Amino acid sequence: MDIFSYSVTMLGTVAFAITAVLASSKQGIALFGACVLGIITAIGGGTIRDIILDVPVFWSLDLNYIWVGLAASIATFIATPFFKRKLIQSLVLYIDGFGASLFAIQGMDKVWDLQFAMPVGPILLGVITAIGGGVTRDVLAGRKTLIMTRELYATPVLLGCILFSILSHIAPEHRATWGTLCTAFIFGIRSAALHWKLSVPDWLMTKTAEEES
Amino acid sequence: MDIFSYSVTMLGTVAFAITAVLASSKQGIALFGACVLGIITAIGGGTIRDIILDVPVFWSLDLNYIWVGLAASIATFIATPFFKRKLIQSLVLYIDGFGASLFAIQGMDKVWDLQFAMPVGPILLGVITAIGGGVTRDVLAGRKTLIMTRELYATPVLLGCILFSILSHIAPEHRATWGTLCTAFIFGIRSAALHWKLSVPDWLMTKTAEEES
Amino acid sequence: MDIFSYSVTMLGTVAFAITAVLASSKQGIALFGACVLGIITAIGGGTIRDIILDVPVFWSLDLNYIWVGLAASIATFIATPFFKRKLIQSLVLYIDGFGASLFAIQGMDKVWDLQFAMPVGPILLGVITAIGGGVTRDVLAGRKTLIMTRELYATPVLLGCILFSILSHIAPEHRATWGTLCTAFIFGIRSAALHWKLSVPDWLMTKTAEEES
Repeated sequence: MDIFSYSVTMLGTVAFAITAVLASSKQGIALFGACVLGIITAIGGGTIRDIILDVPVFWSLDLNYIWVGLAASIATFIATPFFKRKLIQSLVLYIDGFGASLFAIQGMDKVWDLQFAMPVGPILLGVITAIGGGVTRDVLAGRKTLIMTRELYATPVLLGCILFSILSHIAPEHRATWGTLCTAFIFGIRSAALHWKLSVPDWLMTKTAEEES
Repeated sequence: MDIFSYSVTMLGTVAFAITAVLASSKQGIALFGACVLGIITAIGGGTIRDIILDVPVFWSLDLNYIWVGLAASIATFIATPFFKRKLIQSLVLYIDGFGASLFAIQGMDKVWDLQFAMPVGPILLGVITAIGGGVTRDVLAGRKTLIMTRELYATPVLLGCILFSILSHIAPEHRATWGTLCTAFIFGIRSAALHWKLSVPDWLMTKTAEEES
Repeated sequence: MDIFSYSVTMLGTVAFAITAVLASSKQGIALFGACVLGIITAIGGGTIRDIILDVPVFWSLDLNYIWVGLAASIATFIATPFFKRKLIQSLVLYIDGFGASLFAIQGMDKVWDLQFAMPVGPILLGVITAIGGGVTRDVLAGRKTLIMTRELYATPVLLGCILFSILSHIAPEHRATWGTLCTAFIFGIRSAALHWKLSVPDWLMTKTAEEES
């Protein structure tokens, strides 16, 4: 991984840890819990992916993921009021969205290289890489998981992963380009959702009890 | 696996996905969430089993499990009112019970062939194969897990797995017969529970606070 | 493992299973659920550790862990009122604390021997060994996980694991001594917390909404 990709990945790790601690801080969480939730959110998705792939978990080969997640968790714990400022929190949400886009495509790349369960494997594990940590965080914190909300978070990730898969099948020689493109695609939809407060449209929701015949 | 067993397994996969989407539809779930819950319920148990066995996850070797789970989830999402019709829903519950019976015994068979942690391993992992997906679904959907309910769902699975283990130890040469028999045994109890609305009897429940001395 | 360590480990397994069944019995749990929760609490942490390490899960090599966990779960189920007596319950809580101390250090020892993700791996997986089962139990039982509570349970485990790591780096030749020492250290803090009803101090908690600027 080149130095730019690496820096960007670490930035995503930081954002994941910060959002985890912020989201849980309302309930009054202890330092230990903050670090656990921060680290799990940052590395959880990739860990589940690697266990299913049966390869060494990625952070065991590069402990910086743990250190960076830990440092971000502790910093957020100490300076919660700072991170809760409107501008900072908004910035963190965008970086978090960028992290999810990046992790999804990086995850797919890894699975693709291993040719695991093609063509479904990369999509499935790309989505897991991006949202697995956040879902685990929600379960441990006793919150509604992001799978059950109307937030436009997981859906753009899925669409981007499907797009990356299609493009890479059509023109495998340009996979790096498709990766950049699809990361931008996911981040674009997520940013639009954050900016205009968009949520999953009604026709993509199950009918509620009243509407049913 | 012969064509009959294979068809029946796919039918179980379909039923698991349908019940997952139906059970979550009341809360108003997005298409993405419906597919995730449907697929996880259908393949979750076997995935946990294969990770503990440290063998390739079964769906990575036959993607039909994913496709079938996905198709059933989308169909249920689109046609929720149809699947909620009393007769259809009742039929689905029976097929779901049959799926659990089948998955339990198939799971045990796989573990037995690997001679993993005999004689406890097959029973433990058989139960996990049958109910692991449903439990994960309940956790992700924020519902009371089926471990904590009085429903006669997991208990017949456990009894059938124990019975299969005993019979296969006594007469290993007839294991295929015992498998069919125990699938029928589990499905029989489950069907009776569905038909007569039976639940776990009082003497198999912990005493509640009032009864304690 | 010598006979003393082995007996003590089994005692910890018993305590974990008993506390799991006791904590869930208020909700009125069925025998099946009691056994599942008891066994998962007793072996869950070590199972997650072994899956991340990619080594055979420990209980598959020694089924006594399952048998002992099962027996303790059934006994507690049958004799709930006995185990809820003040003195017995208090004793069980101390043994449970001792179990957590022991499992943490034993877990670290295993990871250390494999030189996995040094120096962070042993600490991370030591904590997971000690509290992973309890956290899984809380999730399955629909309770607030012990990560989110103010109870002094996980924090001493973490401190003890960090201490063990530091001491073992300074003087690796005395690791066995450090292990005994750190087990005593964790158990000491946990006992003090139980005896004087201590919880995580305010300065280790995130500020609540009112206090924030």
